[in-house]
Amino acid sequence: MRTGVRRRMGVEERRQQLIGVALDLFSRRSPEEVSIDEIATAAGISRPLVYHYFPGKLSLYEAALKRASEDLADRFVEPREGPLGGRLLRVMRRFFDFVDEHGPGFSALMRGCPSFGSSRTNALIDGVRQAAYVQILSHLDLKDDPPARLELLIRSWISLAESTALIWLDGREIPRRELETQLVHDFAALMAVSAASDEDMAAILRQVIADEPEDGPFGDLMGRLVTLARP
Amino acid sequence: MRTGVRRRMGVEERRQQLIGVALDLFSRRSPEEVSIDEIATAAGISRPLVYHYFPGKLSLYEAALKRASEDLADRFVEPREGPLGGRLLRVMRRFFDFVDEHGPGFSALMRGCPSFGSSRTNALIDGVRQAAYVQILSHLDLKDDPPARLELLIRSWISLAESTALIWLDGREIPRRELETQLVHDFAALMAVSAASDEDMAAILRQVIADEPEDGPFGDLMGRLVTLARP
Repeated sequence: MRTGVRRRMGVEERRQQLIGVALDLFSRRSPEEVSIDEIATAAGISRPLVYHYFPGKLSLYEAALKRASEDLADRFVEPREGPLGGRLLRVMRRFFDFVDEHGPGFSALMRGCPSFGSSRTNALIDGVRQAAYVQILSHLDLKDDPPARLELLIRSWISLAESTALIWLDGREIPRRELETQLVHDFAALMAVSAASDEDMAAILRQVIADEPEDGPFGDLMGRLVTLARP
Repeated sequence: MRTGVRRRMGVEERRQQLIGVALDLFSRRSPEEVSIDEIATAAGISRPLVYHYFPGKLSLYEAALKRASEDLADRFVEPREGPLGGRLLRVMRRFFDFVDEHGPGFSALMRGCPSFGSSRTNALIDGVRQAAYVQILSHLDLKDDPPARLELLIRSWISLAESTALIWLDGREIPRRELETQLVHDFAALMAVSAASDEDMAAILRQVIADEPEDGPFGDLMGRLVTLARP
């Protein structure tokens, strides 16, 4: 509620407020559709004052994207406790929370090249992918450098999660809860494919599966596949 | 070999020659690194003459990309004969041929937003994805509209193929032949995951598997998974 007396914000506080307002608007529509006027109105300040803090829409967009990137990268952080399937499922739930909160902005960004996309924009996206990769890799407790096939598995699975989320946003035909579980199942399935042709991957898969309970997402998938294979 | 007498080309012939020369250069390096001067030299004409046919580098890049897009879309066309696994494997071989031929340009494009990327550039990429989707869907002989889960499977598998190819290009650590087969296995595995939770997908999977020979890529995967699961 407004009290009638407007408290003056400090420079950094005002910048952070503007980033928050901008992120909210950029999340709900594609960046081309959001104007500086609108951001000024939503922040309750004048248009020239916005320009005092940010030289233009691109710099405000990049600041908002930076905050969103840090937020998303944080959601991939998961304690290294309990079976891997359950950890991945919690990560996927938080990932879909993020996608849900930032839907149209996430789509516009990931579908590529908003007309004012920049190399900094790309670097932020790549930074999140790298953070997600490092996080997931850390859960596999490898002593040495990851084999190339494991790196491929994790990185390509991350891109599968991205594309699954984008397809979900386009109509939301399949419940997100189902897709969160499906992506965890996908991870196990892609790992099994890789393990079927490579001994190092087979060893990693055996180590992962050894810790999985029957009622976890990996055990659930195995049970369902057995049922499916029954004639 | 130059004969000393330079034949004069017609307008359309010259345009097509320039597009071919540009595509070759844009395939080997990222578009930022290719100059109009270089294209002119490679085509054996003057820089002003290039501008006579194309107003600038972006329009020449878009024309080259259009030709590459049509080429790539064509490689997804496969006769509807024989088991699905073999068809997908032939498509993946041609896809990796394309990626191999256009490596650095493909990376620069798909890693997003060359600094002069445009909405037309994006539309061309989306057009190839759509053509690939329609082609693969046509092999499943559905009578009705595809269920949402099948559309998700095909579209997300296409993006998995893209990301696998991009990771392969970045160092080529895993032989491409292995990745071509792996992607066909991935398709089967992702389909099995979806079928494990959905009756429509289970019916489609059963129909696909009924036609698969033991020595095809799907049969091969099954055999390997059984071996893997043996204690």
